[in-house]
Amino acid sequence: MRSFGADTRLPTLAVVLDIIRERGAVSRVELADATGMTPATMTHAVRKLTGLGLVHEVGTVPANRGTPRRLIGIKADACYMVGVQLDQFSAVAVVVDLAGRVVVRHDMPGSGRRPLAEVVADLAGHVRVMLKDAAVPREKVLGIGLATYGPQDREAGVVITPHPTPEWTGYPLAATLAEATGLPVALENDATAAGLGVQTLGGSGSSFAVVFMSGGIGGGVILDGHPYRGVTSNGVELGHISVDAFGEDCACGNRGCLDPIAGPRPVVERALEDPALAARLGLGADTLTDFNLIGRAAREGDAAAAALIADSAQRLAVAVVTLVNMFDVGRVVLAGHAFSESGQAYRDVLHEWLNRSVFMRHVHTVEVELAGDVSQAAALGGAAVVLRDLLESPNPVLRTGA
Amino acid sequence: MRSFGADTRLPTLAVVLDIIRERGAVSRVELADATGMTPATMTHAVRKLTGLGLVHEVGTVPANRGTPRRLIGIKADACYMVGVQLDQFSAVAVVVDLAGRVVVRHDMPGSGRRPLAEVVADLAGHVRVMLKDAAVPREKVLGIGLATYGPQDREAGVVITPHPTPEWTGYPLAATLAEATGLPVALENDATAAGLGVQTLGGSGSSFAVVFMSGGIGGGVILDGHPYRGVTSNGVELGHISVDAFGEDCACGNRGCLDPIAGPRPVVERALEDPALAARLGLGADTLTDFNLIGRAAREGDAAAAALIADSAQRLAVAVVTLVNMFDVGRVVLAGHAFSESGQAYRDVLHEWLNRSVFMRHVHTVEVELAGDVSQAAALGGAAVVLRDLLESPNPVLRTGA
Repeated sequence: MRSFGADTRLPTLAVVLDIIRERGAVSRVELADATGMTPATMTHAVRKLTGLGLVHEVGTVPANRGTPRRLIGIKADACYMVGVQLDQFSAVAVVVDLAGRVVVRHDMPGSGRRPLAEVVADLAGHVRVMLKDAAVPREKVLGIGLATYGPQDREAGVVITPHPTPEWTGYPLAATLAEATGLPVALENDATAAGLGVQTLGGSGSSFAVVFMSGGIGGGVILDGHPYRGVTSNGVELGHISVDAFGEDCACGNRGCLDPIAGPRPVVERALEDPALAARLGLGADTLTDFNLIGRAAREGDAAAAALIADSAQRLAVAVVTLVNMFDVGRVVLAGHAFSESGQAYRDVLHEWLNRSVFMRHVHTVEVELAGDVSQAAALGGAAVVLRDLLESPNPVLRTGA
Repeated sequence: MRSFGADTRLPTLAVVLDIIRERGAVSRVELADATGMTPATMTHAVRKLTGLGLVHEVGTVPANRGTPRRLIGIKADACYMVGVQLDQFSAVAVVVDLAGRVVVRHDMPGSGRRPLAEVVADLAGHVRVMLKDAAVPREKVLGIGLATYGPQDREAGVVITPHPTPEWTGYPLAATLAEATGLPVALENDATAAGLGVQTLGGSGSSFAVVFMSGGIGGGVILDGHPYRGVTSNGVELGHISVDAFGEDCACGNRGCLDPIAGPRPVVERALEDPALAARLGLGADTLTDFNLIGRAAREGDAAAAALIADSAQRLAVAVVTLVNMFDVGRVVLAGHAFSESGQAYRDVLHEWLNRSVFMRHVHTVEVELAGDVSQAAALGGAAVVLRDLLESPNPVLRTGA
C-alpha cells in the first residue's frame, strides 16, 4: 500500500475500520503498517473505535519479546446501516451489519414515473419490513444511505435532475425519506456508492474507478479509500462526457454525450428497430429489463444482439479511456444492474481497449473487473456512506451508546 | 474557504506558507480561520516554518483583551527556487524567491529535436548565468523544478514520451540536469506546474482546473491547494481524451484525440493549406510561433485566422466540459505559450460553452480566466514544486540551515 506520509490524504477512522473488517483480526502494528501511520496514531484510532463500541479485542498473538500483541476485531452487531439504490428502472435495499454482511435484501421496482411521494412511501414501507424481518433493534440502526443519480446537492439531500420527471428537480429526497422512516438519510451518487460498496467487500484504501450502468451510465472514483468528490460531489459524470464533439445536442446541454450513444436506452431502441430481433427476445418491457434480455441473448450467441452489445461496449471503452486518462487509476470496476447479463462482454472489450489505448499504459496496466454482485454494489455502498458520515464527523457518537 | 474538518485533505505546511505569502502578515488565529484547523495546530505549523527560517514575526496587532496578536510574515530571501518549463518549441526558466517574486527570467528556444544531452547542457548553462546575475547565494538555492509533458515517471525523474524524438522515452531528465547543475531536480507535469504557478500568485487552497497549451494540450487539477495526482501523477491527460469516438487513430493508442484535432499543430497545418493566409501571416517558422501569428491575426480581424481559432476553441470547449464534468471544479485557468495571442478568444468561447453545457451548471457556475502571465505559469510552478517537495517531506530541513 502507498504510504500516506508525504501525501495529503489521511487514513480516517473509516479506512482503519475497513482494514479491521477486511483482515478479521489485526494488531495495531499491522494497522500502522497498512496505513503508513505510526503505531501511536493507530492506538489513538483504535481507542476511538473501541469507545464507539465498534471494535473490541478478539485475542492476542505472542510477540518476539515483551507483551503479546492484542488483536482487534469488528463487533459485527454493534450497529446496522440501511443502503438503498434507486433509479427509474430498479431499486435495491439492504440492511448491512458492521461486518459488511447483508442481513436482508429487497429488490423492488424502480421509481418509474410515479409521484415521488408514492415512491418514498413505498421505500419506507420496505425499510420497515426489512428491519422487522431482520429483528434488528431499532436503536442500532444508524441511518439510510440513498444512492441515486446526479446532479444532486448531496449535502442538502436534494436531487437536481429533470429525469425521469420534472418533479425530481429540487425534490428533498433525503428529508422526505427521513420523515417517512424516522431515520437519518444521507444522499449519495450511485456510482460513488457502488465504489464504496466494492470497497466494503475488501480492497480497503485502494484506488479505482467505477463504471456504473443501470438506467444510464455513471462514473465514480475511489482514491486511497476515499471517494473523489470535487467541489460539489457532482464529478465523474461519465454518461455526459462527449465522445463525439460533432455529435447531436444532448438534453444535458453538452453534445455527443456517451449515455445517449452507448447506454442501455439507445441499445434497446436499436434492438426495437429490428422487429425480428425484438420478437425473438420478447422485448417490450422497460429499458433495463429489455437491455438485460439483449445481454443474455448476446451471451447465448444471438449475433444481432451481440453486435449491439459490442458496439455499446466499444463506445463505452473510448469514454473509459478518457476516465482513466483523467484520473490515472490502475483498476476499473463495473457495477450496476445493466451489467447483470453482459458484464463479462463489456469487461473483455474494456480490458482489451484500455490496455492498448490509455495514455499511461507504459507506466502501468489497467485491470478491469466486475463487482462481485453488480446489482447490489450501490445499495451496499449506500450503507457504507452512513457509517463513513458518522466516522468522519468531528466528534462521532453512536445514538445507541452501543 | 471550505473547511478541512470532515475532509481527508489536510492543509500542509505548503498551504499554510501559501496563505502567509498571500496575506503578507497574518496572525495564527487568522490562519486557523483560513484553514479550518485549530489555533494550536497553526501554532505548531508556524513553529515548524519558523524553525526552517521561512517565516518570522513581522509585528503585532492589539487584541480585544489579553496579549496582542503576533503577525507572521514570509522571509522573502530565506531561500530561492529555480523553475523551468520545457517543451519542443519553448523553454522558460525563472529564479523565484520565497515570496514568489521572479528575481530573474530567461526565455530560451525549446528542445527542438536536438540530442537531450545538448538540451540539458544548455539549460544548465542558463541556470548558472541566472543564479550569478541574480547574485543569489548558492547555498540558498533549494533546487530546480522541471516542468514538461507526460507520460513521465515523476518519482524517478524520467520522461516516458516518444515526442519529439525517441530519445525522450526513458531519458533520466532530472538526474542529468541535477548532475549538470549540482542542484536537486524535481520533475513535474507542465499543466500541473502551471496550476501550482497560478496558486503561488494567490488563491491558496483553492480548487480549479488548468488547460495548458504550448506545443500540445495538457490539463491539470488543483484541489484545496493540492495537485490531483491519481496513482502515478499521469492523470488529467486532456490532450489525449477522445472527442470523436469514431475518429482517427492517434499515435497515443486512443482514437479521435483532442490534441491532433484542436491543438496548435493541426491549426497551423490547416493554415498552411491556405497559401494566401500563410503568406499574409508570414507562416513557416515552428508550430508555436506560427500558431501565435495566427492568434494575433485572428485578434486583429483576419477572418480566415479567426475561423481557425474559433474552430479549435470550440473543440477544446467540448473537451473542457469533459474535464469539468469529471473533476467538478468551478474555475478553469488557461496557461501556456499558445494562449499568448489568442487567450482571450479561447477564454470567451470556453466560458460561453461551459456555462451552457457542463452537467452541474445548475449547481454552480464555471469561471474561465487567463493566467496572469500565460508563458511563465508553468516555470513558476516548477519553482513552487521544489518548495512543496521540501515542505511535504517527513522531516524538512533546509540545506542552508537558513
